[in-house]
Amino acid sequence: MKIAVDAMGGDNAPSAVIEGAVLACREFGVDILLVGQEDQIRPALGSLEAESLPITVRHATQVVEMDDSPIETLKKKLDSSMRRAIKAVKEGEADAAVSAGNTGALLAISTVILRTIKGVDRAAITALIPNAKGFCVMMDVGANVDCKPQHLLQFGIMGHAFGKTVLKIENPIVGLLNIGSERSKGNKVTKSAFEMLENSTLNFLGNIEGTDVFRGAADVVVCDGFAGNVALKITEAVTEVFTEAFRKEKEGSIRGRLGMFLIQNGLRSLSRRMDYTEYGGAPLLGINGVCIKAHGTSNAKAIKNAIGAARNARRGNLVDRIRDEVVRNAEAESGEGVGHRIWKQLRESIHLSDESGET
Amino acid sequence: MKIAVDAMGGDNAPSAVIEGAVLACREFGVDILLVGQEDQIRPALGSLEAESLPITVRHATQVVEMDDSPIETLKKKLDSSMRRAIKAVKEGEADAAVSAGNTGALLAISTVILRTIKGVDRAAITALIPNAKGFCVMMDVGANVDCKPQHLLQFGIMGHAFGKTVLKIENPIVGLLNIGSERSKGNKVTKSAFEMLENSTLNFLGNIEGTDVFRGAADVVVCDGFAGNVALKITEAVTEVFTEAFRKEKEGSIRGRLGMFLIQNGLRSLSRRMDYTEYGGAPLLGINGVCIKAHGTSNAKAIKNAIGAARNARRGNLVDRIRDEVVRNAEAESGEGVGHRIWKQLRESIHLSDESGET
Repeated sequence: MKIAVDAMGGDNAPSAVIEGAVLACREFGVDILLVGQEDQIRPALGSLEAESLPITVRHATQVVEMDDSPIETLKKKLDSSMRRAIKAVKEGEADAAVSAGNTGALLAISTVILRTIKGVDRAAITALIPNAKGFCVMMDVGANVDCKPQHLLQFGIMGHAFGKTVLKIENPIVGLLNIGSERSKGNKVTKSAFEMLENSTLNFLGNIEGTDVFRGAADVVVCDGFAGNVALKITEAVTEVFTEAFRKEKEGSIRGRLGMFLIQNGLRSLSRRMDYTEYGGAPLLGINGVCIKAHGTSNAKAIKNAIGAARNARRGNLVDRIRDEVVRNAEAESGEGVGHRIWKQLRESIHLSDESGET
Repeated sequence: MKIAVDAMGGDNAPSAVIEGAVLACREFGVDILLVGQEDQIRPALGSLEAESLPITVRHATQVVEMDDSPIETLKKKLDSSMRRAIKAVKEGEADAAVSAGNTGALLAISTVILRTIKGVDRAAITALIPNAKGFCVMMDVGANVDCKPQHLLQFGIMGHAFGKTVLKIENPIVGLLNIGSERSKGNKVTKSAFEMLENSTLNFLGNIEGTDVFRGAADVVVCDGFAGNVALKITEAVTEVFTEAFRKEKEGSIRGRLGMFLIQNGLRSLSRRMDYTEYGGAPLLGINGVCIKAHGTSNAKAIKNAIGAARNARRGNLVDRIRDEVVRNAEAESGEGVGHRIWKQLRESIHLSDESGET
């Protein structure tokens, strides 16, 4: 398995990315295609004593900056490290791509080069949200701000497939982010989406609210990109309020410093849960290929784990799973009556046990 | 000044509400009209030695429960304490109303009895969000899930008037909750709303994100009821995650308990910021009358402060301020060219200094 890594993406690129790639190579036994400015990559690899590892370096003359507009990137940065990494997936040279760079540009490039999966209208950006049970995947978190109900259904389908293949949950629970739990709650789009999700093949829980998200009620949280982005940024903001208070204590009086020292073990498990480096990256879903977006502030560990997520997604045939689920749901939609639904579910369960036999 | 208080609303009603009303009576020198089950209210007042205070008791045979639907309440609970409190405002018997009961029912009753202000399409539910500077008012947080751009403009106008009269900010800064700071960001509705807010008489900052909300970038945060409700509930949920971690420490090992004891002074200021009892309640805006919704879990202190907010809103002529601002903006909209805008702004600043003279 070979993973193409955009060496120039992210706030700590290229050094943290290169180090993360080396770590992943050693820990996961994957091959790496490191794409970026060769004159920066080769010396870094040398200092990490990585010459003997299966790492190929591919030069790219351009770098996508964090504030580049996606459209400008598509037009003017045809030889960027990001684009070349995605190209390598398209051409079958790499099995998956990882980048910690500009999210909008990555989505645009991936969509243009890899195209969306048949039956999927829009690719989506996901986020992994820590909850009481581990993580849930929330989507969309910013790419699709004006959604139709069927888009939310498709997000559910894609998230479900991701939950199975990468989060390793047998039948992920799908929840619809809403402003109340009753089915009558929400806006026009969520009300229609509720019905579509209910009639889908998915393991649909119903509407969920903020508290449910963090308690781990659902493995997949479906929302439009506006609400999802607001939810994500409010989560970060409130976490920042508390982190800032801790920091003040730590840097303040002796009393505060001692107190923080005493509780740091206890808070560590919470910090670990909120720590993005543990999971590294979240996939762009709905495109014909595996592309993991690592957090912009990724350190080496986060990059390593993002590469691990890419490997798991590829190994679990994430894209095929999404394709299958899209087809199953299209069939279920066109089918009629309860008998048909039961037959679908039966077929799905047979399909599932077939696959678990393969594993 | 007389405040009508729904004695039966809220999780801790009627005892906490009655106690809060007595506290407000003593601290703010307001008269109180306590509406609810007389046989419960009179003994409670007796035990608080409140016989000599200017508190009138008004019997109401029905109670709006927390899970009553707004429509059912309108149809079937014609003699509820909530409805009678609002009626007292309508009939000029009270200057403002306070309830800690069912928010949806309160909005429905207020809208039907008091009607919306001319030029305001929809009444809104607000929330006070703690930030680095004190509080900002966010609206709408749940009443209006499908909004048009002009509704967001109206929320801005109403929030601005509330900021002036209750939060006592001279020219409140209005921000539009969005998924990025650039004007091109957001969905169709926020993009149009951005332009309308920019062309309004308001002190419009532009788009703001989660972090800006808590840093205190804006005094008024405008959003539709879906995004606002999601933001509010995610805030509560993340706060719960941290609070739960603190609780575990406090109840855990001696080390944890000691640590928490040492840092509790430091965390107290944070807790105080996040403590809803400090501000008590947030208004329903856009109706012809002052109606403060106290938090459902209000204790006596929260009720007292909600009554204080009602008094401030009435004293500051909140409803007239909203009416004025609606008219000003309608004029500004129909006006043409920069000259007209400058004149408006000039007039507003004169208006402002006139008013500050009155205070």
